[in-house]
Amino acid sequence: MKKAAVIMGSDSDLDLVRKTVEALKSFGIETTVRVMSAHRSPAEVAAFSTCAYENGYGVIVAAAGMAAHLAGAVAANTALPVVALPLKSKSLEGIDALLASVMMPPGVPVATVGVDCAANAGYLAAEILAASDDELYKKLLTFKEEQRQKNINADRKVSAEFGGN
Amino acid sequence: MKKAAVIMGSDSDLDLVRKTVEALKSFGIETTVRVMSAHRSPAEVAAFSTCAYENGYGVIVAAAGMAAHLAGAVAANTALPVVALPLKSKSLEGIDALLASVMMPPGVPVATVGVDCAANAGYLAAEILAASDDELYKKLLTFKEEQRQKNINADRKVSAEFGGN
Amino acid sequence: MKKAAVIMGSDSDLDLVRKTVEALKSFGIETTVRVMSAHRSPAEVAAFSTCAYENGYGVIVAAAGMAAHLAGAVAANTALPVVALPLKSKSLEGIDALLASVMMPPGVPVATVGVDCAANAGYLAAEILAASDDELYKKLLTFKEEQRQKNINADRKVSAEFGGN
Amino acid sequence: MKKAAVIMGSDSDLDLVRKTVEALKSFGIETTVRVMSAHRSPAEVAAFSTCAYENGYGVIVAAAGMAAHLAGAVAANTALPVVALPLKSKSLEGIDALLASVMMPPGVPVATVGVDCAANAGYLAAEILAASDDELYKKLLTFKEEQRQKNINADRKVSAEFGGN
Amino acid sequence: MKKAAVIMGSDSDLDLVRKTVEALKSFGIETTVRVMSAHRSPAEVAAFSTCAYENGYGVIVAAAGMAAHLAGAVAANTALPVVALPLKSKSLEGIDALLASVMMPPGVPVATVGVDCAANAGYLAAEILAASDDELYKKLLTFKEEQRQKNINADRKVSAEFGGN
Amino acid sequence: MKKAAVIMGSDSDLDLVRKTVEALKSFGIETTVRVMSAHRSPAEVAAFSTCAYENGYGVIVAAAGMAAHLAGAVAANTALPVVALPLKSKSLEGIDALLASVMMPPGVPVATVGVDCAANAGYLAAEILAASDDELYKKLLTFKEEQRQKNINADRKVSAEFGGN
Amino acid sequence: MKKAAVIMGSDSDLDLVRKTVEALKSFGIETTVRVMSAHRSPAEVAAFSTCAYENGYGVIVAAAGMAAHLAGAVAANTALPVVALPLKSKSLEGIDALLASVMMPPGVPVATVGVDCAANAGYLAAEILAASDDELYKKLLTFKEEQRQKNINADRKVSAEFGGN
Amino acid sequence: MKKAAVIMGSDSDLDLVRKTVEALKSFGIETTVRVMSAHRSPAEVAAFSTCAYENGYGVIVAAAGMAAHLAGAVAANTALPVVALPLKSKSLEGIDALLASVMMPPGVPVATVGVDCAANAGYLAAEILAASDDELYKKLLTFKEEQRQKNINADRKVSAEFGGN
Repeated sequence: MKKAAVIMGSDSDLDLVRKTVEALKSFGIETTVRVMSAHRSPAEVAAFSTCAYENGYGVIVAAAGMAAHLAGAVAANTALPVVALPLKSKSLEGIDALLASVMMPPGVPVATVGVDCAANAGYLAAEILAASDDELYKKLLTFKEEQRQKNINADRKVSAEFGGN
Repeated sequence: MKKAAVIMGSDSDLDLVRKTVEALKSFGIETTVRVMSAHRSPAEVAAFSTCAYENGYGVIVAAAGMAAHLAGAVAANTALPVVALPLKSKSLEGIDALLASVMMPPGVPVATVGVDCAANAGYLAAEILAASDDELYKKLLTFKEEQRQKNINADRKVSAEFGGN
Repeated sequence: MKKAAVIMGSDSDLDLVRKTVEALKSFGIETTVRVMSAHRSPAEVAAFSTCAYENGYGVIVAAAGMAAHLAGAVAANTALPVVALPLKSKSLEGIDALLASVMMPPGVPVATVGVDCAANAGYLAAEILAASDDELYKKLLTFKEEQRQKNINADRKVSAEFGGN
Repeated sequence: MKKAAVIMGSDSDLDLVRKTVEALKSFGIETTVRVMSAHRSPAEVAAFSTCAYENGYGVIVAAAGMAAHLAGAVAANTALPVVALPLKSKSLEGIDALLASVMMPPGVPVATVGVDCAANAGYLAAEILAASDDELYKKLLTFKEEQRQKNINADRKVSAEFGGN
Repeated sequence: MKKAAVIMGSDSDLDLVRKTVEALKSFGIETTVRVMSAHRSPAEVAAFSTCAYENGYGVIVAAAGMAAHLAGAVAANTALPVVALPLKSKSLEGIDALLASVMMPPGVPVATVGVDCAANAGYLAAEILAASDDELYKKLLTFKEEQRQKNINADRKVSAEFGGN
Repeated sequence: MKKAAVIMGSDSDLDLVRKTVEALKSFGIETTVRVMSAHRSPAEVAAFSTCAYENGYGVIVAAAGMAAHLAGAVAANTALPVVALPLKSKSLEGIDALLASVMMPPGVPVATVGVDCAANAGYLAAEILAASDDELYKKLLTFKEEQRQKNINADRKVSAEFGGN
Repeated sequence: MKKAAVIMGSDSDLDLVRKTVEALKSFGIETTVRVMSAHRSPAEVAAFSTCAYENGYGVIVAAAGMAAHLAGAVAANTALPVVALPLKSKSLEGIDALLASVMMPPGVPVATVGVDCAANAGYLAAEILAASDDELYKKLLTFKEEQRQKNINADRKVSAEFGGN
Repeated sequence: MKKAAVIMGSDSDLDLVRKTVEALKSFGIETTVRVMSAHRSPAEVAAFSTCAYENGYGVIVAAAGMAAHLAGAVAANTALPVVALPLKSKSLEGIDALLASVMMPPGVPVATVGVDCAANAGYLAAEILAASDDELYKKLLTFKEEQRQKNINADRKVSAEFGGN
């Protein structure tokens, strides 16, 4: 199975991004975690991205806030699918990172998830790897079923509290 | 190679979504094109999505405008990666479709591209399939190189017009 | 009298949605409370909605945040009036849930109330049931008059503090 | 069966609002159409709203743009369900009318549909009347089925164009 | 001198609106303070507004949040200048109240100040009364000069801390 | 009676601002029309504003687009009421001019009307002058009544078209 | 005198960006014009930016739309001042390009001008070069004075049309 | 070397703006710090700006919130480059200050940085001065390299925690 990479622009993002890594690892996906900035260490980003495919990566998650360019900077240097995780900062409620991530020009798309949706970035990366890996795909189906069961259990508990249906 | 599916909520979206299909076909990807609506034919969406993996699909693109639920409705019924293409409608500049697509709840991500970025939806779907297909990946690298060359040619022409550099 | 149903996407929404239930019950309306997710338990949502009319429901309130699809997913499967209660999440101030709720495509409307306006969702559902129920309608008029009196009492108190008018 | 009323703030809105009336009439609902402004003829709005229930109305649709107060002004004077249809004006893409309609204070909800979604305002009003009218409800189910068929027909045509599935 | 009226939609707004009253009273302007709601006590709003001119008022400040209709409801019933003070609520950062206040239809303007700018609402009302009252105008000029002096004093202190200029 | 001044930042705004002037003149108000820019001729703005009260003005309307500073620049130099008319430019739908106009700091309010609501800027200025002028106030009441009549006539025509009420 | 560089992401931006070049050349500033894309030719952007200072540039203008990363990609590789010119695309009114340009992370600022304000990008670049060039600074003062005169002439013409002041 | 000036509209902004001053001083740039308001002390702003060039300033940073006019008011009176630092206030997340700063009319640009990005305002001002000062430019390159090293160190630490790469 291909590896996943999770890149964040600053180690101050780690608290949130940890959920992305945990999501990937919960499916047994080998995951590299890196701190690289499109603006502070652009050569490192370019070098990593250019060689990511031949180094065995199948997907790259890039997490960044504000004028979030990291996913785009990665996508500029690889044809691997890049998942953009836009992060909310101290102002503007994350709409800056969302638009700076998702509105990529023709020919260089990134796969954007919701603002601060760190776990979802991991799940999406897992789905991308699973599209060609039956065993991983089955794990994801199991995960989906567990979620459904949690919802059904919550339903049972809540509807009981209000007198059943 | 896995197939791609491109679904749109209404056939009035076809003019734009055609670019998604063309992008996929330009890489030789077998592509099914469907009209299904999360709100007008929800059973059809659920049936298609539930069986998409076993029917040989590796990725599904879902295009919709306004309260764009199509990608989410597909993702609710499959663990395949789903690319959301939010479409601009007559008001609100597409921000409605973008937010209705991208802000998915934990556990059910979709891979959102920019508003009306129909070709990019196709390129992203191709990248997802290419992550496990060396031949397709090489085609994508060639495409990237062609884009770079187009830019360099435009640069030559424009900088010449202004006296070179 | 027809029953009301109140559905929420996750039991973490219960604190707020409780106000919807209380509003309905304050008028003596029989109210079922359920947890069902458009994305995690879509088959449950479809099954409930499809049979809601024949099961005696006259209105369904659907509460959800982020890319709030629950109300739309219900409306896709019933011709009953569906009240959408968009919930504010950790980013974007609720504008995501509002637009994902209200901007429904032609033919499948939902009745959207304000962001986090849980009590109002209940009052609107009550009004819908009351439109064909004289007794319930009278209760709503009484409620309106009580609100007016509260306002008038507050006016008396505040204008007195500042020296009367 | 109760009657429906459709009110607009200005006769310049008639072109769009006509779709609301047509939607209602397509189900055989007796529909009154009025021009009344929350700001230019407020006494007329109050008088009409106060007596609407006793005059046989079961639902009122109020269409207005900009700082769209008409639905709220109606709701202030009746306990009938009020459908707000926010209209797009020359600037701000309709977000002004949407927020001015939907964000009603506690106790006085309105049922808001999407910006310029005139037909949907009519369908929602029909659903409200149908909640207690089996015959009308059946007509709405037929309408839903027709929409589904249109979608399925479009699907057939489009998927055929691209080589079937 | 004409009197000023300050109306708020709910007594929960009093903490903030108190600054409006204080601003008016600081210039010796006789000020009536009322709680009246465009949605909960609309008849009271209409009655007060209709008679405000003959009762000696020269300006009315209306403070409200969410779908803030109070200023518009007052302006619908008087030709006096109405100052709209939009208030921030629990979601949407006050943009709802701002747009619901300021985007009034042709012929019925209100004079909108910034979100939660309660003191400014009072100052603007004072300026309106002062436009025809030399003595009051002089007080406002004195107030402006005091503000300028405060700024100059702050400048002296801050520039000194950093080594003067 | 005091005079009104209407200032615009650029003569390219004249087409729209002409409606402001016409509104003022329709009530017989003596109106000066000027082109002055907060950014291109700031000294002229300051000079005019500083002397406006002693030169017989009772209100100043300032129309500007984009980062609309004109109303604020006037208000910085006079205690007269300043009406801000924010204008829509080629991008951003006028929200830039609206926020740049209305969000004034404590102590220096302006009276903002809706985006491109040029006639309303004139009506508001007239109301401000009328607050101390019984004859002008009566003209404004007549204008209000005419508007009401127009609405009632439109109501008659439209309701007749649809079969009366 | 240092040279200026004007870079655009695509030659389709040239129509607008031409105004930037003209503004710079109107002051006699030697200006290089290039087409380079942060996403399609990232190595070219990095190479140009890294050597720009030693190649005699004093300022770089970067024009881009959508998720506008060009200015940031340049700033990542040089300590020269970078002027960001955000361009409006087919949706979202340019707010995407504005936020993607201006919200740069700590340590890597860019100097952002308004959406589509191409001439202003050139004027700002000229001001930056003029800060250390007395002769150029005098030209800019002359330009400012010409603008002031144009405004004053427009004032004369418009105020005359309305009867002088 | 030319001096820098840092102006803020109110001394309540000092906590944040201090970071601007520190950034400038960290490069040995002589920096004047002032409190001046476009609305409360406009004459002081005009006087300072008009003479800034001849008083030895090479760049002016202007920090303000809400309808942030300070940078524009400075730019109206000088041809020096003006850096606008928009500040977030109690509502609207800083979008008001951002738009009021950046959307300047043709001929009078300001160089806007991100909302509350106080340090970046200082770095940009330093870059502007460095464009013609080799020694200062080298300091900025050193600063860039330090940032890169910090990122690389954080990368080493984080990737090690997750098992290296």
